[in-house]
Amino acid sequence: MPATLKNDRLLRALLQQPVDRTPVWIMRQAGRYLPEYRATRARAGSFMTLCTTPELACEVTLQPLQRFDMDAAILFSDILTIPDAMGLGLSVVEQQGPVFERTVRSVEDLASLGVPDPEDELGYVMDAVRLIRRELDGRVPLIGFSGSPWTLATYMVEGGSSKNHSMVKAMLYDNPALMHSLLALLADAVISYLNAQIHAGAQAVMIFDTWGGVLTGPAYEAFSLAYLHRIVEGLNREHDGRRVPVTLFTKGGGHWAGKVAATGCDAIGLDWTVEIGDVRGQTGDKVALQGNMDPAVLYAAPEVIEQEVTRILASYGEGSGHVFNLGHGIHPQIDPDHVAVMVDAVHTQSARYHATVNE
Amino acid sequence: MPATLKNDRLLRALLQQPVDRTPVWIMRQAGRYLPEYRATRARAGSFMTLCTTPELACEVTLQPLQRFDMDAAILFSDILTIPDAMGLGLSVVEQQGPVFERTVRSVEDLASLGVPDPEDELGYVMDAVRLIRRELDGRVPLIGFSGSPWTLATYMVEGGSSKNHSMVKAMLYDNPALMHSLLALLADAVISYLNAQIHAGAQAVMIFDTWGGVLTGPAYEAFSLAYLHRIVEGLNREHDGRRVPVTLFTKGGGHWAGKVAATGCDAIGLDWTVEIGDVRGQTGDKVALQGNMDPAVLYAAPEVIEQEVTRILASYGEGSGHVFNLGHGIHPQIDPDHVAVMVDAVHTQSARYHATVNE
Repeated sequence: MPATLKNDRLLRALLQQPVDRTPVWIMRQAGRYLPEYRATRARAGSFMTLCTTPELACEVTLQPLQRFDMDAAILFSDILTIPDAMGLGLSVVEQQGPVFERTVRSVEDLASLGVPDPEDELGYVMDAVRLIRRELDGRVPLIGFSGSPWTLATYMVEGGSSKNHSMVKAMLYDNPALMHSLLALLADAVISYLNAQIHAGAQAVMIFDTWGGVLTGPAYEAFSLAYLHRIVEGLNREHDGRRVPVTLFTKGGGHWAGKVAATGCDAIGLDWTVEIGDVRGQTGDKVALQGNMDPAVLYAAPEVIEQEVTRILASYGEGSGHVFNLGHGIHPQIDPDHVAVMVDAVHTQSARYHATVNE
Repeated sequence: MPATLKNDRLLRALLQQPVDRTPVWIMRQAGRYLPEYRATRARAGSFMTLCTTPELACEVTLQPLQRFDMDAAILFSDILTIPDAMGLGLSVVEQQGPVFERTVRSVEDLASLGVPDPEDELGYVMDAVRLIRRELDGRVPLIGFSGSPWTLATYMVEGGSSKNHSMVKAMLYDNPALMHSLLALLADAVISYLNAQIHAGAQAVMIFDTWGGVLTGPAYEAFSLAYLHRIVEGLNREHDGRRVPVTLFTKGGGHWAGKVAATGCDAIGLDWTVEIGDVRGQTGDKVALQGNMDPAVLYAAPEVIEQEVTRILASYGEGSGHVFNLGHGIHPQIDPDHVAVMVDAVHTQSARYHATVNE
């Protein structure tokens, strides 16, 4: 019997239900900007050991909650666990990013891949979810996540990070059938993976489409959004008697928010290049919105951070449906005290936008 | 007395005057994808020697015109000539990009900088413009260009390329007064530089705001667009009895096109992440539009390239005001024969959109 959720602001805001304060968490909140994370990371030896050892993943997941008044925990993991579990051999190289031993560039490469068993090859993730839920003891909800099919495909085809995504785009344009086969397999794998996270205890899920924004509009719809849509439809969105909200985040895709909302997701993540109030004007009450402070604002003085929080809260405006976040992951050089300023400013300043709840 | 311009499609389209075909050129058309460029580059020894030697800059500027039916030549140069002329010591390192010996991060750093004399420190650029005009002999117009103040500032503060632009954004948020002083100086330098290029013979000018798209909307307006506006107002837009069109290109800024059009520029460059027809719907007949094929399409087979040309021409639709281009510079790995396919497809297919002229 799971513990009662003491702070459910996040889940309520994602479902546009009334809240007393705008909830806040930050992408990569368990990360290198925290000295305690760097200590655990050093103890683990490698980034992948940190990801694949449930006790360590749990430890770093909980670290930001000890420092800040965050309204959610997010599973500590990597977006590339699925291709790793498919046997591509992931390593994460300091200063360089992810590197795969094997790439996927042909029908033959693809033929050797299957949907990983989430309780076998990806069992370490489910163990981490169960352990984190136990340790959280109902303080805040736990967010599970996955990379999007298109974003996973970019790394699988390129073999790692890429500046221009030339190889994966060449495949998209020159061999769309092969690309669709790869994306369909990945969509199946993401559905299986996220449903297992939900079954293990993830109370909300988010899909990171980090590279959807490098596509043209028609290519985004055909090669990224179509598979996000398929995933939204394939997820078990009720668990333990509670709705499990789904958030889709395409970096650089804020101008496509109307189309993303049509997938039936509960919320859309936004980066800082769009005005959250403008997007709300377009999507209406179809979805909640998450974001969207420029992570670089956290380099600035506390009063500048507070002003930017003011601006973004005002841009969203009255009522529920806003989850405050950065527009991308926090940078490793940020002073943790500046994060505290942001989190507290969101809670303090947002009360007035939920006045009817607070009366 | 300059030669009569035999092909003025580009200038006419930029001013939304009737044309028989949609004009086409490509960003970095004189570049590493051409074997003849690589040969000249090897002969020069360094990239900066190529830029600073008018005969060599002229040679590579003309190379793409010998291969393709381009409707314009663009000055071969670098966007960072201004900070180099200010004394920051630019070198362009293979596989790494531009690196400055000195950075600008304080009032003291800024105090030592002044507006370069375009006929002295930047005289090599004006010599190249004059030489290219002579060698072009009126075949097609010559486009001059500059980096935008914000984009130049990013390199001057960071000391080179940057993934997150953390230092320049920290300055923007924490010391906006210093940032505005730097940008005001750069706007003066760009005005002086582009007016000198126009005087030397550039028949159109383009400003590359490569990094405006990494800003929030309000920061873009205050720290990039405001200075683009100042530059547009400061340019001599008539020369030799002909209008000199000004094109502004903010990569990742297509959703701000309405605001960019309000600067009074003649044309807006677009990357491939927006639909050119949608942008035309927003900007109406205020400006011409340039773009916007994904450079990665050129990896694909000829029929795919032709289809994408079809799609983009149809998206823009009937009438003048479209200059076909890529949405960013051509990649070095592209097969030059694929460029010929694109250029010819634009000319062949676009006739129907200019039917009233062709009747």
